[in-house]
Amino acid sequence: MYKVKKIDLCAGEFTVILHEKDAKELGVRNLDRVRVVGPKSSITAIVETTDSIVDTEEVGLLEIGFNTLEIKDGMNVDLMPTTRPESVDFIKKKMNGQELSQEEIRAIVKDIVDRTLSDIELSAYVTAVYINSMNLREITDLTKAMVETGDIIEIDKKPIFDFHSIGGVPGNKVTLLVVPILAAAGLTIPKTSSRAISSACGTADIFEVLANVTLKASEIKRITESVGGVIAWGGGVNIAPADDLIIRAEYPLAIDPYSQVIASVVAKKKAVGAEYFLLDIPIGQGTKVPDEELAKKYARDFMDLGERLDIRVECAITYGGQPIGRAIGCSLEASEAMMALEGKEVAGSLIEKACGLAGIMLEMGGVVHGSGKEYAKKLLDNGKALEKMKEIIQAQGGDPDIKSEGIKIGECKFDFITNTGGYIAEIRNKHLVKIARAAGSPKDKGAGVILKKKGGDKVEKGEVVFTICADNERKLENAKSIAQRLVPINIEGMILQKIPSYHRPSVL
Amino acid sequence: MYKVKKIDLCAGEFTVILHEKDAKELGVRNLDRVRVVGPKSSITAIVETTDSIVDTEEVGLLEIGFNTLEIKDGMNVDLMPTTRPESVDFIKKKMNGQELSQEEIRAIVKDIVDRTLSDIELSAYVTAVYINSMNLREITDLTKAMVETGDIIEIDKKPIFDFHSIGGVPGNKVTLLVVPILAAAGLTIPKTSSRAISSACGTADIFEVLANVTLKASEIKRITESVGGVIAWGGGVNIAPADDLIIRAEYPLAIDPYSQVIASVVAKKKAVGAEYFLLDIPIGQGTKVPDEELAKKYARDFMDLGERLDIRVECAITYGGQPIGRAIGCSLEASEAMMALEGKEVAGSLIEKACGLAGIMLEMGGVVHGSGKEYAKKLLDNGKALEKMKEIIQAQGGDPDIKSEGIKIGECKFDFITNTGGYIAEIRNKHLVKIARAAGSPKDKGAGVILKKKGGDKVEKGEVVFTICADNERKLENAKSIAQRLVPINIEGMILQKIPSYHRPSVL
Repeated sequence: MYKVKKIDLCAGEFTVILHEKDAKELGVRNLDRVRVVGPKSSITAIVETTDSIVDTEEVGLLEIGFNTLEIKDGMNVDLMPTTRPESVDFIKKKMNGQELSQEEIRAIVKDIVDRTLSDIELSAYVTAVYINSMNLREITDLTKAMVETGDIIEIDKKPIFDFHSIGGVPGNKVTLLVVPILAAAGLTIPKTSSRAISSACGTADIFEVLANVTLKASEIKRITESVGGVIAWGGGVNIAPADDLIIRAEYPLAIDPYSQVIASVVAKKKAVGAEYFLLDIPIGQGTKVPDEELAKKYARDFMDLGERLDIRVECAITYGGQPIGRAIGCSLEASEAMMALEGKEVAGSLIEKACGLAGIMLEMGGVVHGSGKEYAKKLLDNGKALEKMKEIIQAQGGDPDIKSEGIKIGECKFDFITNTGGYIAEIRNKHLVKIARAAGSPKDKGAGVILKKKGGDKVEKGEVVFTICADNERKLENAKSIAQRLVPINIEGMILQKIPSYHRPSVL
Repeated sequence: MYKVKKIDLCAGEFTVILHEKDAKELGVRNLDRVRVVGPKSSITAIVETTDSIVDTEEVGLLEIGFNTLEIKDGMNVDLMPTTRPESVDFIKKKMNGQELSQEEIRAIVKDIVDRTLSDIELSAYVTAVYINSMNLREITDLTKAMVETGDIIEIDKKPIFDFHSIGGVPGNKVTLLVVPILAAAGLTIPKTSSRAISSACGTADIFEVLANVTLKASEIKRITESVGGVIAWGGGVNIAPADDLIIRAEYPLAIDPYSQVIASVVAKKKAVGAEYFLLDIPIGQGTKVPDEELAKKYARDFMDLGERLDIRVECAITYGGQPIGRAIGCSLEASEAMMALEGKEVAGSLIEKACGLAGIMLEMGGVVHGSGKEYAKKLLDNGKALEKMKEIIQAQGGDPDIKSEGIKIGECKFDFITNTGGYIAEIRNKHLVKIARAAGSPKDKGAGVILKKKGGDKVEKGEVVFTICADNERKLENAKSIAQRLVPINIEGMILQKIPSYHRPSVL
């Protein structure tokens, strides 16, 4: 028997820290596995050896191990060496380019969710799927396995609608308009959203400025059934939990394996019982889907997958070559969305996109038979969407009387002034994201970038092109120097490039 | 400034443990990177967050971080967030199936050796190389990079010979004969060997029974120059150190990416200045190279790589369908090798293989113009090889008067008795390895398996087929139950399978 000691480290896998002597005695080495048997339950954990953090006859377990085993510091556990799980063989099969069966995919997903796989094994899975991909049958089974290994939220107010934007466009706060518009039209939309991984901020980060987004499954059900819509953080509820664990390996490698993206998105929709699903695929420089060809492939595969899972999927390929609206950053975007709902003047791109997307769903739901977009715009103009937004904010514990101008923005500001006149030929999405992040987004809610000019706009020398906001001077300085180095906005004369004639007139 | 605290965990990468609040303040999250700046030097480390193992304004560093920074517990360091290294982009390039340039390969290998890459990134590299492979130009650059990032041992007694067996055959103690034979013939052979990873025991584990194998580079040089030969543990000296770090990811996945195997083997030979190199490629069930076709591909690629690196490479495809000799396990193999050197009767396969391989090298070195194998046999028979072995043992701090019968074998024994008579049709290498490991090999030096019968031998019902040795009863029991479950030896009548005639005589 070994006495357990709590080691508070965050790791993606179950780890057991063993004294080198004990490891030798057990015949295990680093990265081997042991079964940790507690009084109530047992886990399989991956060995890391030490010669001082624990003593002999002591084992270190991380918090997650303590919780799962339901044990307390100082209690006794038993250890038994065990082999690597079968799922590692299935990962290897995918590395060898073979098709995986439903059972094999289930075993991998289960072991990911159970945190049985080490970082090395998880990374091999992600890399293998990135390189060798999965066919639609495998993606369907992957989606099902991701749904089955998490909670399922059953909402009684049917039919259920859902919506997702593939990432890459800064300023894409459309969800904050789409959800209240749909709910105002009487549709049910239990929207779960993500936080930023590499973007400036995710929808969950933005809506958190207005209300609580960390909701339990039961709260999502209750709020959706009573108000019609919810905007919750997907990571706060245990739906398709494999996704977050897989992201642990995708994030450092900065990859989004195609098949995994599709399965992860659809699994989260299936888990909330979505029957109608609209996918927004922004294309353009800096987005995740750079061109129309790939966007169409995504659209086809999402629709095919939907068919196999009884979800009616429609896709909208949208323009993502520059930010949506003018604001990038949590509070800035929350404020801009509220302005749109309040009927104040905002960039046309935001209204255009939000109403366009909401309109498609209104048509899918049979709410309107004419133009869904016009109907959506009406709900925005007549204040019904704002009213619904207030209900959602209140239901999620926020202040329903919040106004766009009442949202606190970072007080340290820097105006980026152009020293040349002309037209805005290009706004580089990725550079803006870097600047917003350097300014403190998404952690500092008030940080971000406000675009004073957008693509095609005319600017004069000395005009402000964009403003950086930050919560403190140090970060503002950092963001400012990055902005000056990267120059995220390209200003040129209307004639962008002059191609000289090959046959020049002779000068002789 | 942060106060450093030593956290004694073994990890493959530089890790810095930060309090969650400090991480938030710095704007970094799990698996992001920070530069840790000490008074003398700095390292880039990967962030793991905690809320109790270190306090705020404290950072935890592992032993390797302490050593590299040359700091002491309680000293102050500074932290600066930093981006992921460029090498991650190059790994991604290989994931995308692209060819890597020399500079890109160098960057990856350097970051592996500097422990700048996380387990996730390292695993992605290994997986990508496994799936997408490397061409010969890339393998050449990989080999060079692996040599350059480690120590180079310059031995003055030229020309330098070296030798390597691709793994998978249990009982392959030929190095313990080949090295003294070559040195007795006046050749120079600074042999570095590995310890067991998944095999029953490595050459370093075996020779450790007789002498110290953890030698410094300077000791390898000195002993080789004075005695002609050395048998050292490759992992104990800093030659091609990338190999061991890459194995950290290969081991849990149980893979040996083809290009990586070739580069790792040749890098270790190049690092000791080998000019003549013999590769032994055992083929047959359970070996790493199952068939002749793959063996020939290995041979071709090793020879081509050798040409690009100025090493004359020859390859011998050998029979590895059953163990070499009769003993499997450290002390058992050391004893069997000593018996062969002492002129006692041992299995013909051992003498045959060792003299065959030594003979090829004697011919490569121009020592003999007739049969190298006969010359090798002569050096074995006339005691010159034994004499040289004693010199090597003494030079490496062992007892030169050790005799085969003086080597301590595990005292707990179990005789595996057959309940059927016939001929040994098959000996399953992998099963024997499992039994030897269950008995305690390679940790327990006395543990292992002795084959009383080999392939083709006739056995009577009730005869002993093999004996398991262990240092304690518990492990013996374990090995015994595995042996009874796996039945590693297949006994059949001489006619293995009778194919019935398709046209049977009519019985009517």
